[in-house]
Amino acid sequence: MFTKREIISMKDFSQDEIDCILKKAQELEVYARGEKPSDLLSGKIMANLFFEPSTRTRLSFETAMKRLGGEVLNLGSEEASSISKGETLADTVRVISQYCDVLVLRHPKQGAARMAAEYSSVPIINAGDGAGHHPTQTLLDLYTIKRESRLNGISVAIVGDLKYGRTVHSLAYALALYDTRISLVSPEQLRIPDTIKSDLEGMGAEVFETSELSSVINDVDVLYITRIQRERFPDPAEYRKVAGSYRISVDLLNDVKDNLIIMHPLPRVTEIDVEVDSTKYAKYFKQTFYGVPIRMALLTMLMETDDEA
Amino acid sequence: MFTKREIISMKDFSQDEIDCILKKAQELEVYARGEKPSDLLSGKIMANLFFEPSTRTRLSFETAMKRLGGEVLNLGSEEASSISKGETLADTVRVISQYCDVLVLRHPKQGAARMAAEYSSVPIINAGDGAGHHPTQTLLDLYTIKRESRLNGISVAIVGDLKYGRTVHSLAYALALYDTRISLVSPEQLRIPDTIKSDLEGMGAEVFETSELSSVINDVDVLYITRIQRERFPDPAEYRKVAGSYRISVDLLNDVKDNLIIMHPLPRVTEIDVEVDSTKYAKYFKQTFYGVPIRMALLTMLMETDDEA
Amino acid sequence: MFTKREIISMKDFSQDEIDCILKKAQELEVYARGEKPSDLLSGKIMANLFFEPSTRTRLSFETAMKRLGGEVLNLGSEEASSISKGETLADTVRVISQYCDVLVLRHPKQGAARMAAEYSSVPIINAGDGAGHHPTQTLLDLYTIKRESRLNGISVAIVGDLKYGRTVHSLAYALALYDTRISLVSPEQLRIPDTIKSDLEGMGAEVFETSELSSVINDVDVLYITRIQRERFPDPAEYRKVAGSYRISVDLLNDVKDNLIIMHPLPRVTEIDVEVDSTKYAKYFKQTFYGVPIRMALLTMLMETDDEA
Repeated sequence: MFTKREIISMKDFSQDEIDCILKKAQELEVYARGEKPSDLLSGKIMANLFFEPSTRTRLSFETAMKRLGGEVLNLGSEEASSISKGETLADTVRVISQYCDVLVLRHPKQGAARMAAEYSSVPIINAGDGAGHHPTQTLLDLYTIKRESRLNGISVAIVGDLKYGRTVHSLAYALALYDTRISLVSPEQLRIPDTIKSDLEGMGAEVFETSELSSVINDVDVLYITRIQRERFPDPAEYRKVAGSYRISVDLLNDVKDNLIIMHPLPRVTEIDVEVDSTKYAKYFKQTFYGVPIRMALLTMLMETDDEA
Repeated sequence: MFTKREIISMKDFSQDEIDCILKKAQELEVYARGEKPSDLLSGKIMANLFFEPSTRTRLSFETAMKRLGGEVLNLGSEEASSISKGETLADTVRVISQYCDVLVLRHPKQGAARMAAEYSSVPIINAGDGAGHHPTQTLLDLYTIKRESRLNGISVAIVGDLKYGRTVHSLAYALALYDTRISLVSPEQLRIPDTIKSDLEGMGAEVFETSELSSVINDVDVLYITRIQRERFPDPAEYRKVAGSYRISVDLLNDVKDNLIIMHPLPRVTEIDVEVDSTKYAKYFKQTFYGVPIRMALLTMLMETDDEA
Repeated sequence: MFTKREIISMKDFSQDEIDCILKKAQELEVYARGEKPSDLLSGKIMANLFFEPSTRTRLSFETAMKRLGGEVLNLGSEEASSISKGETLADTVRVISQYCDVLVLRHPKQGAARMAAEYSSVPIINAGDGAGHHPTQTLLDLYTIKRESRLNGISVAIVGDLKYGRTVHSLAYALALYDTRISLVSPEQLRIPDTIKSDLEGMGAEVFETSELSSVINDVDVLYITRIQRERFPDPAEYRKVAGSYRISVDLLNDVKDNLIIMHPLPRVTEIDVEVDSTKYAKYFKQTFYGVPIRMALLTMLMETDDEA
């Protein structure tokens, strides 16, 4: 049923396939919490080939593999850059795929994962390729919404830099597969690209744009905050004004829906006050945890495919 | 019985608790030597979060965990510093504790471990926090004395920098719990702080200060040497004189007690001549090994607590 | 039968011992491919102490150990250099051998592995010591020839820098143990040292020197290519001419033997065109894989010895 050899982009998945991954993740959550040991992937080896640091992603994959009884090889950014001085990415991937059963690739260049998949003798999982894709982040975001709220019939606000943010574009496409209202909250300069907006509407999504967080915060079920990078603003004063206007504090939460969940891909800087952490709405650390069962689901599905092939 | 959720400072332990840890370590020593495999911590994950390098400590924890069937996540100083640029220690600890069952923290700032324990969802072990505490070092020192000599009714000389040395302060406090005579041997400028000396005497310890190693070396059962750092001396000539006067050579050992043991937290520079290594008194490499069963004892005790909680 | 306590140099092995290692490797290949799990080295710990990066070698050892159920401690070059600032290699080895059952050492200085073996309390495997030895590379080269061609009665061309190349010297000595014709193909400036040539002839090998690859390529069973380093040539034009003349392209392969195998220790730069990769002659990625069963064989043989000791 799940016969992929690689996980490169969310666009490769049908809604059925996504649902199947989310269901599998839920089955595996008991192992993700370490409540019981598993030997599902005993004897299997995953290689983390990370050309740039991404500690959260690396640890989440590593924990997923180890909690299922598998083993992990790590190539950090220093080692990866050293190896890449001497040979092409194609050769590196061909060599490392001799030593493992699945290869997790993080690379600064868009398209690197797709290219790597051509040369690897084992399945590739894209753990972020620059301005390209980061499908496991989107899957864990969806899973968090499913587990802490629900995926159909809800209203989601996505807040922050919607122009450049890879994470939010991918999430918006995925949400458009479900019956979801999407409010896009950003400063005027960082609105979502028109092509993406038309895509979403073409998929049947109800999309609403605003620059005022206050106009939507009390109506949504999910508030997904992302960082606005200082570098996007030539004028520091303008940056401070914008950043300040999307900062979540407890005061802002007085009239929100009772079952609101607040998400953030982390790390947060000033986007969410630490006082918010102790409210029942805060789900961003839980979201971090949900990366483990999602990656477990993908790993088991790829390895099972591998075994049956 | 052992219901701690964190190991931060020796001061948190009663003598009964220390004895219980030492006893547990001895039970686990057979696994520490790799003589038989164990799955006591199978399915469990320990994260090493090291904001500064401390290879001996890191490896000792890692071996302890792996010999008991557990798995390890490593965040070295480069990765840790990269993650700490983007977020607070509190957030880092909250995230990483989602991925493991116990977190071992090494941090240059005093108080970091105590603070981390407030935010972690899993038990924290302090593997050194700057000028603060390093309880597992003290426990392995005590364990070495217990295994290679005995803990009651002995005479211990602690030699070196007694003013700034965190290791020796913590060891002195721990020894004062037992019926032990303590000789404090240091240059005049690096004498133990008066407050610590009074504390020790208040605890009932027999304490003796001297700057002459020769005046005590033939009477002690344990000789604990530490390094004197060059930086403590404005005058290089003065440093050389002092360092030379506490250097252990085979000549110095002609009239020592037959059962003397020599300890050193390592690395040693010139404090102990390599000729001493082959004498029966040299126990500093054995001491390094004893870090494994001690850390095994702590890990199993914390995880058992965890399971029953 | 295999009672070594260390693997330092090919010269320590008799031909019988080599054959025994190659046979063992073949038995273990099924585990190297991850086709079935193994717990042969369960509970055992291997430490990788790498004073310089060598990712391929490190990963190959790590995979070998993990596929056999063992665990691995990694000390990368940064950590190793940090530890070596504070103490001698002898002390580092004594400390780390307290934490493991076998120690794999990579060091830039010739003789480092032999010295380490004197101080280690566990077996040492030399994973390359500068201009010294790298026996596991030679063993995997032999194993590749055995598996993809045969070891007796064949003709082997070794191509490239034969003056400085440690890899090719060691391989040539090993081939001379078998009934093999050896063609040494190099530019005039990089001919094999006369002493080595006489050694080979003294061992009974049929040795032939040339600077023309075309004069031998159609007659050999094994073509072993190595890199010629730019730094060996004061004149860049001379370097380009030489490097170009030893570059393997598909055109060169029109009249080769049907069962020719092409090998390369990797990484390759321009020595082999990527078009060659898809020919049936290309075995250099397979060669990379064969490092795993060879290292498995050595690890199991050393540990078995250890157990019986």
